[in-house]
Amino acid sequence: MISPLEKASILVEALPYIKKFYGKTVVIKYGGHAMINCELKQAVMTDLVLMKFVGINPVVVHGGGPEITGMLKRLGIESQFVGGLRVTDSATMEVVEMVLGKLNKEIVALINKFGGRGVGLSGKDANLITATKKLGAGQQDIGLVGEVAQINPQLVETVIKEGYIPVISPVGAGEDGATYNINADYVAGAMATALKADKLIILTDVEGILADRNDKDSLLSTIKVDEIPSLIERGIIQGGMIPKVECCVKAIQGGVNSTHILDGRVPHAILLEVFTDKGIGTMVAP
Amino acid sequence: MISPLEKASILVEALPYIKKFYGKTVVIKYGGHAMINCELKQAVMTDLVLMKFVGINPVVVHGGGPEITGMLKRLGIESQFVGGLRVTDSATMEVVEMVLGKLNKEIVALINKFGGRGVGLSGKDANLITATKKLGAGQQDIGLVGEVAQINPQLVETVIKEGYIPVISPVGAGEDGATYNINADYVAGAMATALKADKLIILTDVEGILADRNDKDSLLSTIKVDEIPSLIERGIIQGGMIPKVECCVKAIQGGVNSTHILDGRVPHAILLEVFTDKGIGTMVAP
Amino acid sequence: MISPLEKASILVEALPYIKKFYGKTVVIKYGGHAMINCELKQAVMTDLVLMKFVGINPVVVHGGGPEITGMLKRLGIESQFVGGLRVTDSATMEVVEMVLGKLNKEIVALINKFGGRGVGLSGKDANLITATKKLGAGQQDIGLVGEVAQINPQLVETVIKEGYIPVISPVGAGEDGATYNINADYVAGAMATALKADKLIILTDVEGILADRNDKDSLLSTIKVDEIPSLIERGIIQGGMIPKVECCVKAIQGGVNSTHILDGRVPHAILLEVFTDKGIGTMVAP
Amino acid sequence: MISPLEKASILVEALPYIKKFYGKTVVIKYGGHAMINCELKQAVMTDLVLMKFVGINPVVVHGGGPEITGMLKRLGIESQFVGGLRVTDSATMEVVEMVLGKLNKEIVALINKFGGRGVGLSGKDANLITATKKLGAGQQDIGLVGEVAQINPQLVETVIKEGYIPVISPVGAGEDGATYNINADYVAGAMATALKADKLIILTDVEGILADRNDKDSLLSTIKVDEIPSLIERGIIQGGMIPKVECCVKAIQGGVNSTHILDGRVPHAILLEVFTDKGIGTMVAP
Amino acid sequence: MISPLEKASILVEALPYIKKFYGKTVVIKYGGHAMINCELKQAVMTDLVLMKFVGINPVVVHGGGPEITGMLKRLGIESQFVGGLRVTDSATMEVVEMVLGKLNKEIVALINKFGGRGVGLSGKDANLITATKKLGAGQQDIGLVGEVAQINPQLVETVIKEGYIPVISPVGAGEDGATYNINADYVAGAMATALKADKLIILTDVEGILADRNDKDSLLSTIKVDEIPSLIERGIIQGGMIPKVECCVKAIQGGVNSTHILDGRVPHAILLEVFTDKGIGTMVAP
Amino acid sequence: MISPLEKASILVEALPYIKKFYGKTVVIKYGGHAMINCELKQAVMTDLVLMKFVGINPVVVHGGGPEITGMLKRLGIESQFVGGLRVTDSATMEVVEMVLGKLNKEIVALINKFGGRGVGLSGKDANLITATKKLGAGQQDIGLVGEVAQINPQLVETVIKEGYIPVISPVGAGEDGATYNINADYVAGAMATALKADKLIILTDVEGILADRNDKDSLLSTIKVDEIPSLIERGIIQGGMIPKVECCVKAIQGGVNSTHILDGRVPHAILLEVFTDKGIGTMVAP
Repeated sequence: MISPLEKASILVEALPYIKKFYGKTVVIKYGGHAMINCELKQAVMTDLVLMKFVGINPVVVHGGGPEITGMLKRLGIESQFVGGLRVTDSATMEVVEMVLGKLNKEIVALINKFGGRGVGLSGKDANLITATKKLGAGQQDIGLVGEVAQINPQLVETVIKEGYIPVISPVGAGEDGATYNINADYVAGAMATALKADKLIILTDVEGILADRNDKDSLLSTIKVDEIPSLIERGIIQGGMIPKVECCVKAIQGGVNSTHILDGRVPHAILLEVFTDKGIGTMVAP
Repeated sequence: MISPLEKASILVEALPYIKKFYGKTVVIKYGGHAMINCELKQAVMTDLVLMKFVGINPVVVHGGGPEITGMLKRLGIESQFVGGLRVTDSATMEVVEMVLGKLNKEIVALINKFGGRGVGLSGKDANLITATKKLGAGQQDIGLVGEVAQINPQLVETVIKEGYIPVISPVGAGEDGATYNINADYVAGAMATALKADKLIILTDVEGILADRNDKDSLLSTIKVDEIPSLIERGIIQGGMIPKVECCVKAIQGGVNSTHILDGRVPHAILLEVFTDKGIGTMVAP
Repeated sequence: MISPLEKASILVEALPYIKKFYGKTVVIKYGGHAMINCELKQAVMTDLVLMKFVGINPVVVHGGGPEITGMLKRLGIESQFVGGLRVTDSATMEVVEMVLGKLNKEIVALINKFGGRGVGLSGKDANLITATKKLGAGQQDIGLVGEVAQINPQLVETVIKEGYIPVISPVGAGEDGATYNINADYVAGAMATALKADKLIILTDVEGILADRNDKDSLLSTIKVDEIPSLIERGIIQGGMIPKVECCVKAIQGGVNSTHILDGRVPHAILLEVFTDKGIGTMVAP
Repeated sequence: MISPLEKASILVEALPYIKKFYGKTVVIKYGGHAMINCELKQAVMTDLVLMKFVGINPVVVHGGGPEITGMLKRLGIESQFVGGLRVTDSATMEVVEMVLGKLNKEIVALINKFGGRGVGLSGKDANLITATKKLGAGQQDIGLVGEVAQINPQLVETVIKEGYIPVISPVGAGEDGATYNINADYVAGAMATALKADKLIILTDVEGILADRNDKDSLLSTIKVDEIPSLIERGIIQGGMIPKVECCVKAIQGGVNSTHILDGRVPHAILLEVFTDKGIGTMVAP
Repeated sequence: MISPLEKASILVEALPYIKKFYGKTVVIKYGGHAMINCELKQAVMTDLVLMKFVGINPVVVHGGGPEITGMLKRLGIESQFVGGLRVTDSATMEVVEMVLGKLNKEIVALINKFGGRGVGLSGKDANLITATKKLGAGQQDIGLVGEVAQINPQLVETVIKEGYIPVISPVGAGEDGATYNINADYVAGAMATALKADKLIILTDVEGILADRNDKDSLLSTIKVDEIPSLIERGIIQGGMIPKVECCVKAIQGGVNSTHILDGRVPHAILLEVFTDKGIGTMVAP
Repeated sequence: MISPLEKASILVEALPYIKKFYGKTVVIKYGGHAMINCELKQAVMTDLVLMKFVGINPVVVHGGGPEITGMLKRLGIESQFVGGLRVTDSATMEVVEMVLGKLNKEIVALINKFGGRGVGLSGKDANLITATKKLGAGQQDIGLVGEVAQINPQLVETVIKEGYIPVISPVGAGEDGATYNINADYVAGAMATALKADKLIILTDVEGILADRNDKDSLLSTIKVDEIPSLIERGIIQGGMIPKVECCVKAIQGGVNSTHILDGRVPHAILLEVFTDKGIGTMVAP
């Protein structure tokens, strides 16, 4: 049993972190297990609401994950793959947008349930995200897959200032009027830069970056931007982790103070990162 | 050919209407053909953007129409019907929400394309619409069909004030956390009241209310609230028109200045209603 | 007969222009026939009020024209001329100021009548225009004829921001306390620069600049600043048109985006210039 | 010679009055000798500017006096009289408005010269004063003589708040579009009420109200509203003083705190009234 | 050892309380042991700063306690006592004010040290507290002992709004210009009412109100306003507790939501009261 | 006897000075006789309140003078002296702070009595003044004597903007948490720089700087910064005047427009300096 006094002490221990991040913006890429498991979902929502109340401004960018694949399957839409990447034709894009939209409002409803006030936006709202076509490996056409061309953050800034928590779908409109699906990690990174965020947090389903992939105790708690090429070369950063690390590097170059790749399977991972000294996961630092 | 001077005269003729509605809010229920036909869609969007630029604040509430049925079919979800109403179970509701979400962002993207700045919201955002369960005829359970319990218009007011055009999906969260589908006409009416709108416009696929159903020239251009019971009794208002008229009556009782049932198949129906003396369709007046 | 749909189309055609000039300031030199003929007067006023309502900020600088001469005659004040210019002694100046003041309030009253809210100012109000003495040809003293020394635009900016249409008499006070009459074209140009206006419109009683004075179809719709010396040399720009063109050049050099010499005898000339692609008259462009 | 210390003491003596009127509005009817004599004019201007700087908001309403008669004569306009009142036809009204306009800007220029920032307005500006036709004795038509129908004080309030001293010509537009001349005393009184002024000061060419017309030492320094009928009956208030007293009574009934009829021939009469205990002239009190 | 996850859970447990008091004002009477013991002092300061950062507005009213007696002794000022109350002559008052002033700035410096921004005020600043003379038992003159006559809370409201923590000495100026010492409990109560505070907390050196004075487990955690007369009669509320309870009752009658008499000897007593469900000490409730 | 008209003239004479200093900040070092003599005190307070009402923002920095010595004596605290400077141990500092605090609130109460609204602050409030340790001659430790390390003027700026007169005690907290006593002249100079004041006034008990110490008529009304070294060398500036002149020089280098060493024994010395052309005392000019 934790005594009242111990409870008070723990609150007091949070004070320096509250001070440090007061009035700052923290962009969170939300995805993976933390978006599927019911308890983890609730823990994330509480973390967001608590941050908002103590004066920190969380901004959520979410992915769509397995639900998109499920819905494509249900609809009998078969995907072609080019170099391992799914070609996003307009029928697929329609499903992507629908599923992202549904997940977006689910997150908003959960935030509201936990006492915050969420506002769900897609990159189309107020031209928040404009996109350009992204080509696959070998410059192949992979359809409506986009890159962030520009972020117009005014709407998000207004929403933050009025006390809401913005929740953003990684979809953008191109100059051609078409809708593009954009990797949520990249959107989160670009959003962090555009909002002059203090911190970027990417929730993943791994412990962070491990020096030895087979040893969970070999977590690298900090890696520096200039160590990254060598870490990639040595295979320590590999696969899906490479683009995540890239987003972090870009965000740092864009002026974000610190970036973090966290294990979203740990309950309250965001809170632990923000409110304790040790932090968890791997920090990518300048 | 219309001469430049004639053009100028027509602009000048609009002046009294611009003055009259300057700074006022107009809620538009958007649905039917005007949401399907490509040219009509573009005409609606231009009308909205033009209104915004001349100082009027349009707010769009849209329905989902045939796309929902189509998607249910594609997903093989079969619906039960009770007293002619589809029972909305949670699998159906998920589809409803997804389709509405997709349509919502389509409208937003079109507004943006025509030079406005749209912001798409669902009733879940910032608890904009809270819902209560609605029962079918004979108090039968028809699932996740809801009624408007409360409108919290602050977010929409902020969005209007910042120069955006809000586009709203008729979905709300209940106290129980469940998502409810609400008739878009009712949402539009309740929104008009909550926003202290000056005007409510319901776009339909008919000319308005006809004295003689077989004579398109028998349009009733104005009906008064106290004539309505007799018009219903005499079968002049019937079927799907009854709830639309009901929404208008409620909005008028809630303080909305004028309410209109327009033929959305006429291009620029909204503009003609707002900017010409004659108006089109049927006005429901106090 | 123009059908409602044609009317709607014409309104919609104006949208790109409304967007383009939204929130911009347009300074109009008002004089000549447009200030005498009753219908033209009303057309100008409607144009001003319409512009204001659609989010453009018109600012009027007016001349005094034939009324001054008429009043001098009635009062038996004879004028000396030096190099063709009337010498403005203090008795003459008093009449000039009185007549301008009366015309100023007439314009204001007309704006009000057409639904705008005009505010009449002279250059003395809040030291809006300070003047220095201007000498005639050969450095001769021509009395109280002035040049703009400085514009203090704060009062006009306040008046614009509060939703009024400012109407300005071309009179200024000198350092010596004396009142000076200033050419209204020059005041309009200097005002456009000081207010960072987007557009300067000078209403005249000719079609614009004609390549061949005897051929009204030879209108030069655009002349470039660097073509002007040659056009003057060739006599295409001559007489009273020279100072008007000079004002345009100065305004362009002062940052005004486009300047126009329009035929004020055409009804709604201002509206046609602002809201149609073709424009009318001659544009002086950088 | 007054010593520096005595000077300091006098400044200090003004402190309670500065405190008392801080942020308050004082409406001054300016006319008579104080508007003709050069030194008196300068004294009035200094008083106005000083008041503004110490946080009091003066508003000037001026008359036209002898200049109007002079100009009518110069122009050979003959006036008909009905019951002693000049019939104001439109030719006469034009002259009235011109002369008032000229005087208005003269006052503005003088205020500017003494370091204030004057803004001259007529009742037409922003519909500041709307007028209704006033009939002469026996309901005779006396032309364009008006009464105050309504004051729309927003423009004057803006001008005050932005630090300017408003100077107002007693001219108003009627519903019929015609321009009416209104007695400046009445305009000052109505303006004081509309602006929720603390004080109304009417400058006259007499000492105030004398108990014995032949004895300048018999000044009544205060008269109460309910004494007035008896004072009129006894001939102590008579002639041109009656309407002035009437204005004061109306202003008091409209919420103005104190009203004063001062001798404008005394230099700095306004300052003496506002900044000394004794005051000068006659106060009309509730 | 408390695990990171337990820590996170405790932070999350605080969320409902943070929400509940967000933007609310809490007035704290600070005195007794909590003002003497070094660790308790630090705990109080951290509690104040933490509250401020999570959006609650603490306002401190402090007493002077034993330091005043000590300084009077050092200065050889002997006090007369009337009915057990020290007569406060002007020499004593001077000492009271000096000691309170020193303590006030000590508290401010400690708040600053812990990361807040304190501003120390006495009741004289901006006429924050005006006082009237209080008589002793039997209407005896006990010198410069005062009661709160009026609170002018504007300065404190400004200070709160600008992000500072106000710290207030219980001293006020009378109409007679004299300085009065006022009981800090009463000042805290009156301040809570004037600031429309949500909560009043009085720190004492006892557990709260005990049903049986000899049994520390007999704490009454809530007493209702209408039980109080009977509790006084039965001797359960007695001595110095009576005025504290009185202050609570007055504050409740003045609109304060809840009032608390806490044991200031418990570290973080304020935090425990505000952030846990159980609370500590005795709540005086309506 | 001074006539009303003379009084008015004197008010009018003040106008140019009021204009000149409108909205400007004037920092006044208050000490010496002007803080002891009852009439001088009242004269200073009236000067401050008058300045505030006519739009000038006075800021008072006061010393403690003889009262500190008196209280140390009463408490039997003996001081060591090093090179003529009193060593300030913590017992002494406590007395210094208490006495300064009491004087601070006395000044505030007097300002309030004369119709202003004073707010008393010490350098600890909101970390207004942070201090560093100052060493005595020969680098000897003289205890808690400090120098200004930094001014954080936000609180004072807020207090000024809200219409209060700030009164500041020359005490600051060091990084080490200790309280330091700082020379009030230096605090006034640093405050003038930090507040971007227009004027610094140091009240002294001498006429100013005399060319011949024995001839009171030999006052140097202006000395230039670059003359000062020579004036010190020649013994014309000497003793306690040297640091005062130093403060003036620093303030001028920090951007203060003019600095003055005035004879505080002259009633209304501040007013005479600010509101008359001649000024009194010695101005230190760039």
